[in-house]
Amino acid sequence: MKTKIGAKNCLYPLPTVLVGANVNKKPNYIAIAHVGITSLGSVCLGLGKAHYTNAGIKKNKTFSVNTPSVRMVKETDYCGLVSGKSADKAALFNTFYGKLKTAPMIEECPINMECKLITTVDLANSEVFIGEVTATYCDETILTDGVVDFGKVQPILFVMNDRSYWKLGERFAKAWDVGRELVQKK
Amino acid sequence: MKTKIGAKNCLYPLPTVLVGANVNKKPNYIAIAHVGITSLGSVCLGLGKAHYTNAGIKKNKTFSVNTPSVRMVKETDYCGLVSGKSADKAALFNTFYGKLKTAPMIEECPINMECKLITTVDLANSEVFIGEVTATYCDETILTDGVVDFGKVQPILFVMNDRSYWKLGERFAKAWDVGRELVQKK
Repeated sequence: MKTKIGAKNCLYPLPTVLVGANVNKKPNYIAIAHVGITSLGSVCLGLGKAHYTNAGIKKNKTFSVNTPSVRMVKETDYCGLVSGKSADKAALFNTFYGKLKTAPMIEECPINMECKLITTVDLANSEVFIGEVTATYCDETILTDGVVDFGKVQPILFVMNDRSYWKLGERFAKAWDVGRELVQKK
Repeated sequence: MKTKIGAKNCLYPLPTVLVGANVNKKPNYIAIAHVGITSLGSVCLGLGKAHYTNAGIKKNKTFSVNTPSVRMVKETDYCGLVSGKSADKAALFNTFYGKLKTAPMIEECPINMECKLITTVDLANSEVFIGEVTATYCDETILTDGVVDFGKVQPILFVMNDRSYWKLGERFAKAWDVGRELVQKK
């Protein structure tokens, strides 16, 4: 039995990330989870037009995507509560830069992706920044056999519907594999 | 100590969904997890250009996003293994339509979003479809006090790095709340 619940966005959970950009030549970080993957090598960010970060991304044509761990939930949530207009959020973290020079990254986050802006899509109330991942940095402690292990990353998953953060559960099946028995039946 | 791992996309986990589109006037479903939220009311899909689904989305300017539960992992994975060119994937499910008429939805999925195409972004090897969520349908059993409860939905989370599906863990903090104590300190 289906219930209609209005035009409610339910594409959750999504990973909460700290997006880094230089604004007025200084590093700034914003917490968002309205993000996505647009192709194997690119990501998108949906940012309300009022945000301080947008001007920095447009000026430098670079940004970073930093994945915080559950142990960083307070700092992460704080970076979604206050604006870079009035607070120096970069003071909470150690910042480093990569070869793009203008995409500040957070040392304390286990994964950092340095991105180059490909294009911007203008929507009614938000701007969508699509960027190519040009380099990825991570802590050695989150690798298993050289591959990023999200069980070790412990990302902060976000759900808008009940305004909450969730942990990742267990790995339970292999992709492009568990459905093979249905292919054989056909 | 940071390790460089190349230009590796690590914006995971993302929710695995079944995207519905009418192709050649018949319903078709593809499993993807390269998706995201672009604004409060819109979503994006990153689809390789070779996929069968793309022509249907472009023709009708509609699509659906259906969230399967972990109990549907075999059917979901199957819809990522085979193409609508050679298999009638809709035969696996009961299809229903909403007011957009051309966005087929899956009865067995606990959440269905009916979407209207806003714009398409052409990337090197993929097309990004951005759509407005115009109506959302869900099973009553996944609601808690009228709000979608992802603990009940049990979505299938996807990680490309180790090609695996993960379960959602526990809700552990409130968003726009847990970081308030840092605001007060400043």
